[in-house]
Amino acid sequence: MLGAVMHAPGDVRVQDRGDPRIEEPTDAIIRVSAACVCGSDLWPYRGEDEMQWPAPMGHEYVGVVEEVGDDVRDIKPGQFVVGSFWGTDNTCEICRAGYQSGCVNRVPMGALGAQAELLRIPFADGTLVATPALPSDDLVPSLLSASDVLGTGWFGAVAAEAGPGKTVAVVGDGAVGLLAVLAAKQLGAERIIAMSRHESRQRLARQFGATDIVEARGDEGVAAIKELTNGLGAHSVVEAVGTQESMNQALHAARPGGHVGFVGVAHGVSLDGMELFWSLAHVHGGPAPVRRFLPELIELIWNREIDPGKVFDLHLPLDQAAAGYQAMDQRDAIKVLLQP
Amino acid sequence: MLGAVMHAPGDVRVQDRGDPRIEEPTDAIIRVSAACVCGSDLWPYRGEDEMQWPAPMGHEYVGVVEEVGDDVRDIKPGQFVVGSFWGTDNTCEICRAGYQSGCVNRVPMGALGAQAELLRIPFADGTLVATPALPSDDLVPSLLSASDVLGTGWFGAVAAEAGPGKTVAVVGDGAVGLLAVLAAKQLGAERIIAMSRHESRQRLARQFGATDIVEARGDEGVAAIKELTNGLGAHSVVEAVGTQESMNQALHAARPGGHVGFVGVAHGVSLDGMELFWSLAHVHGGPAPVRRFLPELIELIWNREIDPGKVFDLHLPLDQAAAGYQAMDQRDAIKVLLQP
Repeated sequence: MLGAVMHAPGDVRVQDRGDPRIEEPTDAIIRVSAACVCGSDLWPYRGEDEMQWPAPMGHEYVGVVEEVGDDVRDIKPGQFVVGSFWGTDNTCEICRAGYQSGCVNRVPMGALGAQAELLRIPFADGTLVATPALPSDDLVPSLLSASDVLGTGWFGAVAAEAGPGKTVAVVGDGAVGLLAVLAAKQLGAERIIAMSRHESRQRLARQFGATDIVEARGDEGVAAIKELTNGLGAHSVVEAVGTQESMNQALHAARPGGHVGFVGVAHGVSLDGMELFWSLAHVHGGPAPVRRFLPELIELIWNREIDPGKVFDLHLPLDQAAAGYQAMDQRDAIKVLLQP
Repeated sequence: MLGAVMHAPGDVRVQDRGDPRIEEPTDAIIRVSAACVCGSDLWPYRGEDEMQWPAPMGHEYVGVVEEVGDDVRDIKPGQFVVGSFWGTDNTCEICRAGYQSGCVNRVPMGALGAQAELLRIPFADGTLVATPALPSDDLVPSLLSASDVLGTGWFGAVAAEAGPGKTVAVVGDGAVGLLAVLAAKQLGAERIIAMSRHESRQRLARQFGATDIVEARGDEGVAAIKELTNGLGAHSVVEAVGTQESMNQALHAARPGGHVGFVGVAHGVSLDGMELFWSLAHVHGGPAPVRRFLPELIELIWNREIDPGKVFDLHLPLDQAAAGYQAMDQRDAIKVLLQP
């Protein structure tokens, strides 16, 4: 079968990778209906992450189950499924506490390469959630988004304790940031401030529920948030970039006792202990436990209450994956969907 | 009146400081019944904090109200009062959210010097809580502890979300750490691990509710916590020291999705963003909003349900403050009470 492989920074090729097979009795094999390029895939693409080359790519996926191992009980061949970007047992103490991304048996789906025609899913019952029926084509992008980018934005908003009566600021206007806006709206936030200086992204942020847009960054951006919040700062701030600048911006924009949810993969970021101490902020984040949210997110999408699939502004056939990486790298596309 | 003044690192003198007077109509003047030396007073004593010398010292106090300003409504002359180490209005949006230590009008009581015979209290109604009646002498140390060290340990345990079914680890066996053990016990924690290598402090930790003692530090200490928690780490960790080593120990000892409450004043501490990301821990801390907890803590003390005053293992007259600093600096005493 065909799958995307990164051979070096900037060098993505779609090539034959051999068909995956059931390896453990808890595995399933799915035929991938859609996969996509993640903002985090850009770190190695830009040479900013150490990798073992060549590397199969992709960790976001939806598809139809082809085959299941002998110990798979809930997931059945023929079902349309959405899975998290971690393979997780969903039975260990950490999973049961809602932190599947910290599962004691977790497997990063990126190592298996979801930008492909077929994909092996470890712990199929723990990793996958089936939709009520086969979805119509127009629902596929939204369901795909639940696999990571929506689930991650949602976690960011939950970690930031977005909710009724709260002012939520979102740092980062990539797909995760935009979907954190959508999540904050769904969670009932009163006011949602999107930090963005790109008109098309601002438009999408407003469609997703942003009530205010702040174009300024850094200290000026923080000052703008303070001005909108009576000098106090936001109750909730989602950090969806992963740089020192964005983390500082998020921390400084939160009020004392406020919550920062950070879901940008923190590259070269450090938090000053004394500053954190005096900020009185709550800080929580990391790789999103998407599996916790999947049933709820699938239901919202199935009932057409949310339309997160809008973040995919470029759809390409899988064999044009390289063009997809390039478009995201150059910010010509917010998020690229790949169709095998 | 007499009060303690630090003239340089290691140089504490009790001298005439002139009587404080009502300056704002919201002020009160109290006659201090007891004050104490704080672990944080040791930072300047050891030359590790920048200070303007000479500096009046002390921010923990209980006493009897002598006089109130014209706008003070709730606090009356003759009442015995406990106050937070911040003067706070208790009416601003931050105070009302329970973060009085981030009050928009906060005044650090340390600047007013509570190790003294008399003390001016800004925002008397917002800062002070009166006891039901004049306390018997044996209750005074416990009431004094509520002013900071108990309130701070309590906040650490609350920030770490100590509660029923939880395993709580406490890093630091100073008075704050020991009282975080007491707080975790009161909050219903199932298992409480005190990290201490001093026998007298271990004994007190056990009296306050510790179920386990870990003597190891650093990576070995973390390994010991993991061993006690099925390899997962503690649900809740209180960091009550404020060094890089203690912060690392706390972060590494928490399980994915766990909570670190940090109340040690973070000196030279930095948190690595990537490590924090992958830890999936919640981090919250800072200067404790003691005022939030005072009514509850006073009630527990008044009803003799807790005896936090045990942390004061050395009582000295105010004019021997210098000896008190020395005893704490050399860890000959856990916590020193000063009687004007």
